Amino acid sequence: MSAPIIAIDAMGGDYGPHCIVPACISFLAEYASLQLVLVGQAHLIEEHLRGLPSAERQRLHIHHASEIVTMDERPSQALRGKPDSSMRVALELVRDGKAHACVSAGNTGALMALSRYLLKTLPGIDRPAMVTAVPTQTGHCHLLDLGANVDCSAEHLYQFAVMGAVAAEALGKSNPRVALLNVGTEDIKGNQQVKLAASLLQQARGVNYIGYIEGDGLYRGLADVVVCDGFVGNILLKSSEGLAAMVAARLEELFNSSLPAKAVGLMAMPFLRRLRGDLTPSQHNGASFLGLQGIVVKSHGSAKEEGIQSALRRALLEVRENLPQRLHGRLEHLL
Amino acid sequence: MSAPIIAIDAMGGDYGPHCIVPACISFLAEYASLQLVLVGQAHLIEEHLRGLPSAERQRLHIHHASEIVTMDERPSQALRGKPDSSMRVALELVRDGKAHACVSAGNTGALMALSRYLLKTLPGIDRPAMVTAVPTQTGHCHLLDLGANVDCSAEHLYQFAVMGAVAAEALGKSNPRVALLNVGTEDIKGNQQVKLAASLLQQARGVNYIGYIEGDGLYRGLADVVVCDGFVGNILLKSSEGLAAMVAARLEELFNSSLPAKAVGLMAMPFLRRLRGDLTPSQHNGASFLGLQGIVVKSHGSAKEEGIQSALRRALLEVRENLPQRLHGRLEHLL
Repeated sequence: MSAPIIAIDAMGGDYGPHCIVPACISFLAEYASLQLVLVGQAHLIEEHLRGLPSAERQRLHIHHASEIVTMDERPSQALRGKPDSSMRVALELVRDGKAHACVSAGNTGALMALSRYLLKTLPGIDRPAMVTAVPTQTGHCHLLDLGANVDCSAEHLYQFAVMGAVAAEALGKSNPRVALLNVGTEDIKGNQQVKLAASLLQQARGVNYIGYIEGDGLYRGLADVVVCDGFVGNILLKSSEGLAAMVAARLEELFNSSLPAKAVGLMAMPFLRRLRGDLTPSQHNGASFLGLQGIVVKSHGSAKEEGIQSALRRALLEVRENLPQRLHGRLEHLL
Repeated sequence: MSAPIIAIDAMGGDYGPHCIVPACISFLAEYASLQLVLVGQAHLIEEHLRGLPSAERQRLHIHHASEIVTMDERPSQALRGKPDSSMRVALELVRDGKAHACVSAGNTGALMALSRYLLKTLPGIDRPAMVTAVPTQTGHCHLLDLGANVDCSAEHLYQFAVMGAVAAEALGKSNPRVALLNVGTEDIKGNQQVKLAASLLQQARGVNYIGYIEGDGLYRGLADVVVCDGFVGNILLKSSEGLAAMVAARLEELFNSSLPAKAVGLMAMPFLRRLRGDLTPSQHNGASFLGLQGIVVKSHGSAKEEGIQSALRRALLEVRENLPQRLHGRLEHLL
């Protein structure tokens, strides 16, 4: 393929261009052939590009868009009321073949609604799902859906499982173990949707379905792809983030409690910071929308430079693996 | 009230009498007027009572029951097929007024089914809920349901919220803040059940309903009572346990990685052990069944002595507060 081009919603997230533009500049330095399109209010973006060497400046394009989707806006408002939002224009660049992927740290619901409307789903997929890599004791697992779909039928869960398996494989895991998240591992456990999805997956050829997994099994690394509805996935991920923050806060408190403890803390904190980063997956890694006819990666609203770069890295990986095309090919056989 | 009597299923859990009897003996030493009834196979229980001073032996009664409900048994099998199980007989002692509470570390589904059948629910309550205290940045919150009810209507969630509020108050929290667990805090977020439950709670007098809470808000301590269906609650709690175990394992690994790190670890590990204990709530604390005409506390299947004692402590507290009676009084006004 030609040199990859990623469009980024420069106005999205809690920090906007102030954080996103520097993140893009550092990211370009890592990947020689990559081009980035910064979409948003040109004068705000340009402020952060001053003094940039021309070699890098040539790979950073500004695409003006006058409007901004706010973090608390209704998806319908973003869809109907803001034809020139940075989020929408970035997605239109993907739709029109002018970029290979879109990255945004903006309003999740709006990004999902605009993505579905502009890019459409792949044949056989009712709803796109959000997936991210969650750290486990043995590496990481791909968890989906993360909140795009709060009510899911068994068929939706089945589609998520198939998409998760194909994505995990594209991202380097051969024959990934796929599990359904449930309140127990015995056949009788769970709600109707989960039980029905299990029977669909047991019959699916080409998916390495290993059965039910519980919440602790996920972190023990018992599966490579873990499937649930968006309500459960969102709460699992956010409560994990909250717990990780609580652990970090408590440890810092302990390490500040006395002089000897401070000495311990000074030695332990670099470890702990890395750990906390690993345990805040949605901030750390990007979350990818699977099932669209195009690549869209969502960065956490509160992501700083490192988080934005992780999302860009994820998008680039999906571009190189041509993930939507791969999904399309596999889905034809599986759905 | 007369001296409290707690019946304990001595055969339940992964360790049975081997762990439960010593836990009871230590617990008795803490509470001078308490009496415990050990229910199960008498010869196995007696083995662990040898050499016990007679003052304590007099407060420890054995009630023989010949059968055992296994951990993977179907609730229906425990209900219909085992009339003389230690779990059932312990509950019958509560039903017949011979004990004030029942504690079991056995099969959760079977314990719930037997509790409902033998003790019945309070008027106005369709289904009992499982609740436990989860540590937060500011103290702890009461989370329910934890897995007893995988599918819940808005009315069920509403009943859980009312019961959780009354229980939190009985356990010492005045005017507890009650929140519904959701995928966002805005009104438009969530599934139909959660939205409907919210409108029921907004109209409820005498419940301090503060709105939706997200997974991270729970650990940040934004509410005293957090309500969700049993599918979500079970997965939240078990994934938290798994994450806590992962953190502990990673830190131990880090502290073993070099000689200076070992020195740090020696100083940090006592802190970390306490932290891990706090973060494994269902193992650490008992989970209480709310909404029954009697007190039932479930200890984690893998709970060791300390866990069993926490469950006994919880049961004793509920006996002293006469929780079912308090619930009954409040429910008459609220439901």
